[in-house]
Amino acid sequence: MQKLTSQQEDFPKWYQEIVEKAELAEHSPVRGAMTIRPYGYSLWENMVKVLDAMIKEAGVKNAYFPLFVPKSFIEKEADHVEGFAPEIAWVTKGGGKDLEEPLAVRPTSETVIGEAFSRWIQSYRDLPMKINQWANVVRWELRPRLFMRTTEFLWQEGHTAHSSKADAWDEAERALEMYKKFMHEYMAIYVTDGRKSESERFAGAEETLTVEALMKDGKALQLGTSHYLGQNFSKAFGIDYLNEKDERLLAHTTSWGISTRTIGGLIMAHGDDRGLIIPPRIAPIQVVIVPILGGEKVSQEFKLFIDKVEDELSDLRTYIDWDDQKSPGWKFSEWEMKGVPLRVEVGAKEVNSQVLTTVCRDGGKKESVQFSDIREFVDKILEDMHNNLLQLHKEFTLNNINQVSNYDEFKSVLGAKGGFISGAWCGGRGCEDKVKEDTSATIRVVPFEQKEIGNCVVCEKKGIKYVLWAKAY
Amino acid sequence: MQKLTSQQEDFPKWYQEIVEKAELAEHSPVRGAMTIRPYGYSLWENMVKVLDAMIKEAGVKNAYFPLFVPKSFIEKEADHVEGFAPEIAWVTKGGGKDLEEPLAVRPTSETVIGEAFSRWIQSYRDLPMKINQWANVVRWELRPRLFMRTTEFLWQEGHTAHSSKADAWDEAERALEMYKKFMHEYMAIYVTDGRKSESERFAGAEETLTVEALMKDGKALQLGTSHYLGQNFSKAFGIDYLNEKDERLLAHTTSWGISTRTIGGLIMAHGDDRGLIIPPRIAPIQVVIVPILGGEKVSQEFKLFIDKVEDELSDLRTYIDWDDQKSPGWKFSEWEMKGVPLRVEVGAKEVNSQVLTTVCRDGGKKESVQFSDIREFVDKILEDMHNNLLQLHKEFTLNNINQVSNYDEFKSVLGAKGGFISGAWCGGRGCEDKVKEDTSATIRVVPFEQKEIGNCVVCEKKGIKYVLWAKAY
Repeated sequence: MQKLTSQQEDFPKWYQEIVEKAELAEHSPVRGAMTIRPYGYSLWENMVKVLDAMIKEAGVKNAYFPLFVPKSFIEKEADHVEGFAPEIAWVTKGGGKDLEEPLAVRPTSETVIGEAFSRWIQSYRDLPMKINQWANVVRWELRPRLFMRTTEFLWQEGHTAHSSKADAWDEAERALEMYKKFMHEYMAIYVTDGRKSESERFAGAEETLTVEALMKDGKALQLGTSHYLGQNFSKAFGIDYLNEKDERLLAHTTSWGISTRTIGGLIMAHGDDRGLIIPPRIAPIQVVIVPILGGEKVSQEFKLFIDKVEDELSDLRTYIDWDDQKSPGWKFSEWEMKGVPLRVEVGAKEVNSQVLTTVCRDGGKKESVQFSDIREFVDKILEDMHNNLLQLHKEFTLNNINQVSNYDEFKSVLGAKGGFISGAWCGGRGCEDKVKEDTSATIRVVPFEQKEIGNCVVCEKKGIKYVLWAKAY
Repeated sequence: MQKLTSQQEDFPKWYQEIVEKAELAEHSPVRGAMTIRPYGYSLWENMVKVLDAMIKEAGVKNAYFPLFVPKSFIEKEADHVEGFAPEIAWVTKGGGKDLEEPLAVRPTSETVIGEAFSRWIQSYRDLPMKINQWANVVRWELRPRLFMRTTEFLWQEGHTAHSSKADAWDEAERALEMYKKFMHEYMAIYVTDGRKSESERFAGAEETLTVEALMKDGKALQLGTSHYLGQNFSKAFGIDYLNEKDERLLAHTTSWGISTRTIGGLIMAHGDDRGLIIPPRIAPIQVVIVPILGGEKVSQEFKLFIDKVEDELSDLRTYIDWDDQKSPGWKFSEWEMKGVPLRVEVGAKEVNSQVLTTVCRDGGKKESVQFSDIREFVDKILEDMHNNLLQLHKEFTLNNINQVSNYDEFKSVLGAKGGFISGAWCGGRGCEDKVKEDTSATIRVVPFEQKEIGNCVVCEKKGIKYVLWAKAY
């Protein structure tokens, strides 16, 4: 296997090579679109399974809404259309004819679900209504990057309606909390949670909440967002209900989503110069067993021993690499590239001694384990590996939050080290725009956990919020 | 709840009403498209879960391919483009610009997967390659009918490539066998398996295999198809490989799919004048518990008893209908409409006696069951119900295969009774066309299990195949 470009040398190239060499995904012949290969899709399936259970646990029901959205729907909410219009793919012909009204391929489903809610919701008894959809969405992309920015991507979008602002807020916060939990407990990605500034909000939202993570190249990545939409979509689509007193009131709505982009985050939060590192709880293969044959024919005894090892680990996701065309060394590199958490090596020595050789993907630590202990050992090591990955990413993130006291320092630290720049912000759009123009960095998050607020690090006027700036994907 | 139109009175109207009243799906504002509501989607999720496990069990891997297909791809296989062109929705604008090449919204993915296979497959060691995709597809529909014919629908499409014709054939047959098993063992729908006539084949296939079922109105429905594509797509996309002797050869490919249409089949194979009947193994709710309160406040004792019942049934999909706005009678009708296999009624009498009242959805049989026996009883009754539904549908189907000996009889039986018309066919396209023109019926399937072959029931020349004709959805 050809050597991977190092992160140090060329991070974007490292990323591109890892996606290809680990067989996660590839560019499709249609510019901007992506094919998710079986290994990458299996990872996505594991993520979906976990997140889907969390969503259902919260009383949200899955449904499926149409891919095509009439132009008139998209135009009903002014901010929404302004935000999404440039990214929309339009169907103009169907069934051999030009269409009277062009159809948008959904960039998101607030409008089509808003229309359905307006019919499904009549009384306060119908509230809260909590719906989720797993779907493909399309947003035209001129500078595609696999998983990070593609014209089509897969995601879940939750949409809920509530009788009060407080309930809708609670739901938006619950969804964000769920994403944080998912990132920490399954993806082992440490995130900072908080609000977006007005200029970074979802088109049509009153408030956007976000979980933001720092990648190994010092750029930030938005991993999940949850929007309090106020009554904007309720007004546009007539989502109203009769309360106990028979008064007609507008509902308050939310929406929230996570996408295949999270896979990009996983790669850049954990990967190293040997390849991908996949946290064990969502890894397509948790343990790979590599038989070391030394050119000899596989003996019955050897095969039986491998079967025994597999049996012991049967409720984990294991794979035995019997390929006789590749050397053990090649296989080791290949499975490291694919980020499999644990490798178990079995050669004649291991069969004779009944002692297995194991190698961890994260630290590369090699250990010898008695066959009788293998089950317990693997459970523990996978658990430790998850915690270790999360801890490492947390430390990396905290070490790369750079407090600055003035704008010169802001620019020089950002230029030299990247990472988050933390400090106060006056709340003015002018300072945001200035930073963006000078450095391309944006306010990634106004953390829920606010620190002491000094003067704005840009204009030095009185700060009103503690925020994190960064260059971002 | 308003009464359902009876099947006898107006079958299409009965179908439409049941889809609406059971809250399975609804027409979306975009003509021809469908919204799958939570209850319908939950049914689909259960079907997907079962079928996905079967697909993986067969060594097929899931992946995801792009929604958009370049026009030039669609045009590469002559029969394929001819078959699908009239149904394609075209994206002509994206990112604010007119596209140079229009993009088809995938009606199926043979072409885009063919292109990927041509790159992924290099050597005989890469074969067989077996990929499956769960996706939405679009085929323009002028006369939409929920689940049966909609512009967008959900499905799985399996695509495989093999080194030999024999291997590809085995795969096509394996997939069909899987569908048959799925229909019998989960959907409780009795199907006839066999081949399609040439005129009814998938566009681009050498041979199409099908599982076909009879609906309660006497029309047939194609529920799953599996295609041996020969080397047609391999030629069009260059899917070739080097064999052991370093010779470059074209692969043989297959594709096979099942869609949300199957839900339409379920409705029309099992439903009755009280509503839907969902086979227990895939029912969103297997047991509904209806507390009968008689206007009184719920006592602690009552609540505890309901909890105990729920605990006993906790590994089944159960729902307790606590709604205090609806009468028990109303709820009974509602859950019958939704086709829940078993209803458990709990009132003061049941709490006192610790004897539960149960009612089966299929036969309406009412039974009293000791609380201590409820778990065993429910397991058995759900198992019996599945077998009973399959048996009933099998009997219905076999009773509606009408053997005819000449064309006058063909037309009169078809007109009077519907169902399958069985008999010999000379193999000529002329007879097929004539039947279609005279009666709108088509050859649904050339059964694998061939009966004695007399003269063609249309032209009375020598028959070469035993076939089943029917009017079809």
